[in-house]
Amino acid sequence: MVGLAKVSARLQVSRRQRATPYTPKVEALGVSGYSVVNHTVLPKGFGRSEQDDYWHLKQHVQLWDVGCQRQVELRGPDAALLAQKMTPRDLRRAGVGQCLYAPMIDAKGGMLNDPVILKLAEDRYWFSIADADMLLWAGGLALGLGLDVEVDEADVWPLAIQGPKAADLAVRVFGERLRELEFFRFTRCGFDGHDFIVARAGFSRQGGFEVYVDGFERGGPLWDALWRAGEGLGLEVGYPNLIERIEGGLMSYGNEMTRANNPLECNLDRYCALDSGLDYIGREALESIARDGPARRIRGLRFDGEACPPCQHPWPLEIGDERVGYVTSAIWSPRFEQNVALAMLERGYWDAGTAVEVCCADGSRRRGMVTGLPMEDT
Amino acid sequence: MVGLAKVSARLQVSRRQRATPYTPKVEALGVSGYSVVNHTVLPKGFGRSEQDDYWHLKQHVQLWDVGCQRQVELRGPDAALLAQKMTPRDLRRAGVGQCLYAPMIDAKGGMLNDPVILKLAEDRYWFSIADADMLLWAGGLALGLGLDVEVDEADVWPLAIQGPKAADLAVRVFGERLRELEFFRFTRCGFDGHDFIVARAGFSRQGGFEVYVDGFERGGPLWDALWRAGEGLGLEVGYPNLIERIEGGLMSYGNEMTRANNPLECNLDRYCALDSGLDYIGREALESIARDGPARRIRGLRFDGEACPPCQHPWPLEIGDERVGYVTSAIWSPRFEQNVALAMLERGYWDAGTAVEVCCADGSRRRGMVTGLPMEDT
Repeated sequence: MVGLAKVSARLQVSRRQRATPYTPKVEALGVSGYSVVNHTVLPKGFGRSEQDDYWHLKQHVQLWDVGCQRQVELRGPDAALLAQKMTPRDLRRAGVGQCLYAPMIDAKGGMLNDPVILKLAEDRYWFSIADADMLLWAGGLALGLGLDVEVDEADVWPLAIQGPKAADLAVRVFGERLRELEFFRFTRCGFDGHDFIVARAGFSRQGGFEVYVDGFERGGPLWDALWRAGEGLGLEVGYPNLIERIEGGLMSYGNEMTRANNPLECNLDRYCALDSGLDYIGREALESIARDGPARRIRGLRFDGEACPPCQHPWPLEIGDERVGYVTSAIWSPRFEQNVALAMLERGYWDAGTAVEVCCADGSRRRGMVTGLPMEDT
Repeated sequence: MVGLAKVSARLQVSRRQRATPYTPKVEALGVSGYSVVNHTVLPKGFGRSEQDDYWHLKQHVQLWDVGCQRQVELRGPDAALLAQKMTPRDLRRAGVGQCLYAPMIDAKGGMLNDPVILKLAEDRYWFSIADADMLLWAGGLALGLGLDVEVDEADVWPLAIQGPKAADLAVRVFGERLRELEFFRFTRCGFDGHDFIVARAGFSRQGGFEVYVDGFERGGPLWDALWRAGEGLGLEVGYPNLIERIEGGLMSYGNEMTRANNPLECNLDRYCALDSGLDYIGREALESIARDGPARRIRGLRFDGEACPPCQHPWPLEIGDERVGYVTSAIWSPRFEQNVALAMLERGYWDAGTAVEVCCADGSRRRGMVTGLPMEDT
């Protein structure tokens, strides 16, 4: 059994682990935990329980420092060509103003990332990336292929407004027309003499917006304006909530999936334009995988026993002596009054209702049951 | 003024922030702080002061969990070609068994990484990387250029033995012939029925070894064997020590240098085969920079006042009203009884002895003086 990293160990700070424009704000609000994503700190707690933050997120509105969602910008005559090379999702009919969730894969079909792509112009894209230096992948490809495209990390620091009252907050700062913005569309909204890109999107199932704040120095004043505007709305500082994310079936790159997984295993079939004639990296491998069907799939899981520890190493799932999968993320759910998890299940064992045993890091074996995603009340 | 990340904030653990084979060992030894490098935890404290750990490192021997130094493996007919493409260092006469410190740069000459390259065979290299996903850079280039080379992250988890008594410890496990191993050479040493790659190298100036433990499951038993062998040598668990690193002039990618810096600014002139006719990425840009000479250089710095806070954002260096550089890493030195720092100084201001003012994150202005590197006793 490999050990767990200690939850009490401090994060050591340096220039390498970058602060965001909102770091002074979350510090002042009592941030108690950080994660590191894209060499940037991501607040992960404010001294309250994750359960309290969960209930609040589902009922009110939260401001999240997600500056760690770095933007890899492709710009120039071959930007569209490179963007399409890097994903099996068909981008040909994508319009300017659209956000596109897109798997990025290598030549073997392995998942490299699952960004949201923002099409800013016919020759300009942002890849809003999960935790990996896709700047280097895009840059290496562009150089190797001799493409006419600039690849940079943009000076953009996303800020998320999440929760059922997100629109009520956002319109106070950006104006009423934000209410009409469709899901996974973005628009430009004026505030304090600058046009900010605001998308109807975010890493929760509670609805909300992401503001793609361009210019580090604009972040602090915008945070303050949103904070002030939250008066009377029950606004709190928050962060991507593990309970809500698991129940909602939102995957996290590096947790649910790695290079060892293909997009079909990650249920991303509908983002893969199979047999379309599209020219993208990994097409041959992916089409071969698709012919046989994936060998495993990500599913939900609920399991018994007391609140489980954090999942740092995959926990085996067994039926009798047979290993049928593994848990990738897990936490106690106050809604289900049970532990909830995301898990990779082998073919033949991924149907909702399948009973499995969870070999938890604390040494316990617990009764579990496979669920669909998002998890439904039963 | 942008804020500092709170030193008391906990690191939140997950599968994404990988444990190493040694994580259970450092947990049992009371690890109190972590950093994250290459999506992997790096222990950064054990409840003692960094000063105590510094004096110990300079007098005895320490075992370090540096599993975060991931190995990007290049393997196959075009491995040597790709390796050379990625660095201005001339690898043509490198021999098998050699470790080569090598800047990696982009087409504009910007620093992407500063790995130690291990030449394992004519067609097999490990790039022991600092904090960036060079796997993606190498993989993107290989694919784009159509090279016949496999690019993978090896299942290798380095363990460092550092300090003046490092050889005394290492030979107890790996045999007496390790004493003869030259600096920046590696050899294979048998232990418990397996040949481990051991290099005379490490991220301190106190001498020592790095064991490139291939196979996650071999890490724990080797750690235990070294720990037991340390009896009577004053062995302690340690980690890359910021005081020792700064005094020794060892640079950290992401701290001292980023893509915005070229290798000449980082004093890596001797690792750049300028005007050699070598074919590598960034040659044109680098030769152009070399013709004018770099506009700034990394130097040492000592400055007055009480123990400074950690440097998370570059601190301006000024002479009168003029900005002449910035601090990238800083800490109190018990040896000099002064703060020590690494800093980037503009041309004209980088000579040792130049007096500057440090605009510290705590709001103070402090008298400082540029030094050479490594820092010498005065």
